[in-house]
Amino acid sequence: MATSRKDQPLRAAASPAMHLVHRPDSTGTPLHVQVYRQLREWILAGTLRAGARLPSARTLARDLGISRNTVEAAFAQLRVEGFITRRVGSGTVVATTAAEVAPFAQRPATTPDASVPTARLSRRGAVIARLGIAEMEEDRLSSVGATDVRGFPSEVWRRMLARRARDGGAGILRSGDPFGLRPLREAVADHVRLTRGAVCDASRVVIVNSTQQAIDLATRILLDPGDAAAMEEPGYPSARAALAASGATVHHIPVDADGLRVDRLRAHRTVRLAYVTPSHQYPLGMTLSLPRRLALLQWAATGERWIIEDDYDSEFRYARHPLAALQGLDRRGRVLYVGTWNKVLFTGLRLAYLILPAPLVEPFAAARRVTDGFSSPLLQAVLADFLSGGHFAAYLRQARAHYEACRDTLVAEIAARWGTAVTVGPSDTGLHLVTHLRSQADESRLARRAKGHGLVLTPLSRHYAGEPRQRGLLISYGGSNPAAIRKAIRELAPDVTRRSS
Amino acid sequence: MATSRKDQPLRAAASPAMHLVHRPDSTGTPLHVQVYRQLREWILAGTLRAGARLPSARTLARDLGISRNTVEAAFAQLRVEGFITRRVGSGTVVATTAAEVAPFAQRPATTPDASVPTARLSRRGAVIARLGIAEMEEDRLSSVGATDVRGFPSEVWRRMLARRARDGGAGILRSGDPFGLRPLREAVADHVRLTRGAVCDASRVVIVNSTQQAIDLATRILLDPGDAAAMEEPGYPSARAALAASGATVHHIPVDADGLRVDRLRAHRTVRLAYVTPSHQYPLGMTLSLPRRLALLQWAATGERWIIEDDYDSEFRYARHPLAALQGLDRRGRVLYVGTWNKVLFTGLRLAYLILPAPLVEPFAAARRVTDGFSSPLLQAVLADFLSGGHFAAYLRQARAHYEACRDTLVAEIAARWGTAVTVGPSDTGLHLVTHLRSQADESRLARRAKGHGLVLTPLSRHYAGEPRQRGLLISYGGSNPAAIRKAIRELAPDVTRRSS
Repeated sequence: MATSRKDQPLRAAASPAMHLVHRPDSTGTPLHVQVYRQLREWILAGTLRAGARLPSARTLARDLGISRNTVEAAFAQLRVEGFITRRVGSGTVVATTAAEVAPFAQRPATTPDASVPTARLSRRGAVIARLGIAEMEEDRLSSVGATDVRGFPSEVWRRMLARRARDGGAGILRSGDPFGLRPLREAVADHVRLTRGAVCDASRVVIVNSTQQAIDLATRILLDPGDAAAMEEPGYPSARAALAASGATVHHIPVDADGLRVDRLRAHRTVRLAYVTPSHQYPLGMTLSLPRRLALLQWAATGERWIIEDDYDSEFRYARHPLAALQGLDRRGRVLYVGTWNKVLFTGLRLAYLILPAPLVEPFAAARRVTDGFSSPLLQAVLADFLSGGHFAAYLRQARAHYEACRDTLVAEIAARWGTAVTVGPSDTGLHLVTHLRSQADESRLARRAKGHGLVLTPLSRHYAGEPRQRGLLISYGGSNPAAIRKAIRELAPDVTRRSS
Repeated sequence: MATSRKDQPLRAAASPAMHLVHRPDSTGTPLHVQVYRQLREWILAGTLRAGARLPSARTLARDLGISRNTVEAAFAQLRVEGFITRRVGSGTVVATTAAEVAPFAQRPATTPDASVPTARLSRRGAVIARLGIAEMEEDRLSSVGATDVRGFPSEVWRRMLARRARDGGAGILRSGDPFGLRPLREAVADHVRLTRGAVCDASRVVIVNSTQQAIDLATRILLDPGDAAAMEEPGYPSARAALAASGATVHHIPVDADGLRVDRLRAHRTVRLAYVTPSHQYPLGMTLSLPRRLALLQWAATGERWIIEDDYDSEFRYARHPLAALQGLDRRGRVLYVGTWNKVLFTGLRLAYLILPAPLVEPFAAARRVTDGFSSPLLQAVLADFLSGGHFAAYLRQARAHYEACRDTLVAEIAARWGTAVTVGPSDTGLHLVTHLRSQADESRLARRAKGHGLVLTPLSRHYAGEPRQRGLLISYGGSNPAAIRKAIRELAPDVTRRSS
């Protein structure tokens, strides 16, 4: 077929650009794909207009110095996608649909949205994005609560992982249950019954990826936008973000030495859900006293209110008698108990759990199904093996001894080096403690200075939603060791004690 | 210390129950924990009232025939939890806080919420629960889209998993990035650029757990409750559930042989987001034509609307020329492309991805951080290895051949055995096809009958939000093989062709 005048735009465009197709480009894209893409681009850009006749594959191949098969492959792709039509007699023609292309012809494909620097999000999307960006920024600045994975029996874990990956077979690859893997639910129920005094069986356990997901699901299942929720002040910033992300109005209830001021909670009569850390108040470290626990349960029982009990680190309790969970005192089915393996084992595990009042179990699994699906069956199976094989208990004994030594060193060194410039909060549980600053030392400056010293310091002020009532530092020793702690406390001493009042 | 009259309730209660503590109970709970729990239960139940004096540890131990240390341990636990006080001179006394206990005394601990058969959920929670329960029911009835994991190179996968678990070390255990693991984002970008004609680099990839999570995040970021969304009718039920769960008003837009009727979409002027399956309409199987693609992009570009392109199974395209993704035609940054590894590899993997317009990348990662966290770093690393090592491409070639043989067998057997009772929809892509029933055979009855025949049949009617326009069966062959297909089609023939018009 002879080329016609209609070919001219193609041939003109082809001459500077198409010689590139002599060799594969740097990404290894095959020649016929390059030809296809270039022709498509010209059609989309309007360089080749509807009705324009293309040269025959033979002619184009000769002009470009490539094989005819390569051009035929490109034409075939363009035809199947509707960009060109090929009819015996009239040759290869740009499809009339290309006439609709104009609106898309304004930018080259490599910068598809260069002129869209921002996107209009939904109102709630804007809230969620803002909260999440703040949280990501915080993650970048610190690694609060990260455990020292050096102590983790990774060889045992790896062996179990390999075994499940090998013979777990179809069950691990295929299925998934929004409630969680049954053997893991059993192992979790055994664990919380035995060590936390929780009242439950496996049927009330729902496996999730993280505490964050547990709170997110709870807010969506239990709160409508605008409903009121409450949490401790100061409190856990990520929980605050999750509550706010759900559209809830969040009331911040002060704490004292006995934990949450339940009397102050009562004053907010519309609150439908309270997020609390009864075993180890985050960040200040006290436990919620028995009278307060009972008052909180009574508050929830009257008026069908809900309590999220975040029991995030009570595995690391160094005193002889671990406090039982609030959940174990609940006789009215108002407590949603949240525990996580991401803290006590390792952050990258992505497995946590809820112990739920029976009527909430199915709604939570259903919400999981619709919003996300289910957690990795493989990792669930390995964790179930790890728990039921007694490896967790063994690891915990060793890890607890390690962290207790860290805690002892930290408390002793602070007393010796920082002296009267600080007072130290409760330290009998967990992987962090709070030092209240009596000196005029600058919280944020100290936190920055601590970087690279093996201790993570976070300004206490960051844990307040409102005006900070106390100045201090949250010191996380979960990723540290006694030698590093001694060194860090000594090196920070001049900054802490300087300008001490 | 002598026992007093106040001891009487305890001793009376103790006599029938406490003799049980002679031996560990069936759960292996230590004796001192049993004693602690029993005493706590009596205090919570009001059997032991505030101010009641307990016998001395020595006396109680003798009465119960257990060691004094056991009783002391139980008392210590009760004291630290605030249930009793111990003072020199006045002995061990039930704390006055127990007076607050009455509201919690009505039920034994073993049935904490027996009288709470239902819970008051939020309005959106009730919607989410209802949607999710329907989805879970559907999962139970079928396994649509499940791939045949027998073909998966699980030995290769296992080796890579073991290697990452061994030397991935702290990185795998510790960190997590809401955007996703960088090497996986790179590998995903390479994959979609090369095989799907997508326009992107790694910076626009966000890793999620599942298509479901991608849709859920998109609705929360881009829609407020009450905003209008649209999807195909018939369409993917789980996407419909995700849209509805977000509080959106969902418009169901009919499809024809060219896919979504974009003209009908335009009629709903408030729609802000459309969920579509352009490469392989779910469930009917046609592709969205080029004019429709361009019209859809134009619709989105005017009015800042969004398109979710769910490209769920185009890896399994048997025709010579795979259609490029809609995303590759988008010049205005309106398309959110969703791909999943849970279908093409295995359901239990829990890894999928979004290719996002640049301004949406950070908001999505932020939403992930607040609502869930991040995907398993270990599994992400293994998948990145699997992709960049070329194992995916090799597996896909083999899997595609297997499924093409399944498809060929299915189409041939249906033609031979079911004859004119059905017409078969497009079958050049994916792991399912639709047969439209011309006979009067009962959809649901056939679906039930097919169980145990190695083929999953789902009534087409289930994919309609409104009144079904067509009767038919969605036949999923992803978990099947040619022999099973031949047998199933033959055995179902009498039911399909019976009462044929």
